[in-house]
Amino acid sequence: MTYKELSEQIFRKKSYLCVGLDTDPHKLPSHLLNEKDPVFAFNRAIIDATADLAVAYKPNIAFYEAQGPRGWESLQRTLEYIPADCFTIADAKRGDIGNTSSLYARTFFDPEAAGLNFDSVTVAPYMGNDSVTPFLAYEGKWVILLALTSNSGSADFQRQPVGEQELFEIVIQTAQTWAGPDRLMFVVGATQADELSRIRELAPDNFLLVPGVGAQGGSLAEVSRRGLTTAGGLLVNASRSILYASSGTDFAEQARAEAQLLQKEMAQYLSE
Amino acid sequence: MTYKELSEQIFRKKSYLCVGLDTDPHKLPSHLLNEKDPVFAFNRAIIDATADLAVAYKPNIAFYEAQGPRGWESLQRTLEYIPADCFTIADAKRGDIGNTSSLYARTFFDPEAAGLNFDSVTVAPYMGNDSVTPFLAYEGKWVILLALTSNSGSADFQRQPVGEQELFEIVIQTAQTWAGPDRLMFVVGATQADELSRIRELAPDNFLLVPGVGAQGGSLAEVSRRGLTTAGGLLVNASRSILYASSGTDFAEQARAEAQLLQKEMAQYLSE
Repeated sequence: MTYKELSEQIFRKKSYLCVGLDTDPHKLPSHLLNEKDPVFAFNRAIIDATADLAVAYKPNIAFYEAQGPRGWESLQRTLEYIPADCFTIADAKRGDIGNTSSLYARTFFDPEAAGLNFDSVTVAPYMGNDSVTPFLAYEGKWVILLALTSNSGSADFQRQPVGEQELFEIVIQTAQTWAGPDRLMFVVGATQADELSRIRELAPDNFLLVPGVGAQGGSLAEVSRRGLTTAGGLLVNASRSILYASSGTDFAEQARAEAQLLQKEMAQYLSE
Repeated sequence: MTYKELSEQIFRKKSYLCVGLDTDPHKLPSHLLNEKDPVFAFNRAIIDATADLAVAYKPNIAFYEAQGPRGWESLQRTLEYIPADCFTIADAKRGDIGNTSSLYARTFFDPEAAGLNFDSVTVAPYMGNDSVTPFLAYEGKWVILLALTSNSGSADFQRQPVGEQELFEIVIQTAQTWAGPDRLMFVVGATQADELSRIRELAPDNFLLVPGVGAQGGSLAEVSRRGLTTAGGLLVNASRSILYASSGTDFAEQARAEAQLLQKEMAQYLSE
């Protein structure tokens, strides 16, 4: 999906909601456990219930990987099921030396390798240029680079002072020499709203993937006020608050209700 | 495997060789392609040929992941086949917020999750404390944290100046407040030999996992002179130079010859 297409989806759906598919097999409603692939059955119901409200889906790869080979099969089925008008994110936080990053890129971007064809993958910046650019070798695919994450440990290294700046600012500036905003997004935690204005100055046109609204406590209003651009420019992720809104047979209905609350708030911010 | 056991293996085998199982299905000798699981058949032959010369094996997870579900099966078989006296490293470069890192830890450390029971996993430090410590919740398991990597991109962020130091030094110092040398190693590229003495001062007792000898051009002599401790303290990895020493039916024999060259050199440095 291109920058322009993503932007158009946002204004068409009046939403910059990304639904995080952090699907925990131990948290599934019990009536799904008899399905052949309960994780996929759950994801399918969540996607059916939210696809008109969300512009992106973000499977958290750890949840699938922890199930071994069958987890990767659930992931394949889930990805195939996501409608074509939704942007897809492999939240994998990969990054290694060049020849290895090339293989991680192949995993998530080349359907003939592992049966996956994501639009984008999250990448950790620590290893620098040649750990990131192999993901950009796949035309039309995106890198979503960790910048300032939502967790408390983000203070340990991301906020170390480098000259007059902090490390995450160096990451944002440096990475922009590797790719334009049509191929590069940044992860900025919603719990870091105070820094969002500064980040928006450093990266005026890049989409920001913002986790941390909901279970982690970030404010959608603050994130939107500081992060929205004329192209949209934000993908705000919610996972647990949507997926586990109910543990009963009405889980999909309740997931939709939660997604709708967020979407309605987003529609308002987009119109302002 | 404990620190003491690992150290004992090093002096018993007169080796601190780690064989990197970066097994590329496109580089397998053609006579293996008729096997049911050619990747495993290759790894088994490499392990048979090198197990008395190596103290550790390091499957590079990207190579397995890029094969989809069947890659994870090859990885399971390979890990089960590695002899118990060898330390095992999941070279995965993982790291995410706490609940997600817990799942990555479960993937590699809990055999009931994904059928894997590694001794250790490589972790990227960018997300800080709560992205790393979930891996330490598994008793007796190790974190091998990226410090100063072997690739050219290591200069982009790892070597950024933070006060009087560089970022990788902050990583090494900070991480030592999270775990002792009995649970924590650092990745230091062999191509960074100039910095190894400084790193050894900052982490006098931690094992260092050193890739980059061989195909990447690092010097075993330099690494050993600056990195060895009375407990050994080094795991020097070689992957491509061993795995692909020959592409013929003699690949395992040639792999052994390459491993033996390294082991003999290591035996000499250990005795000095």
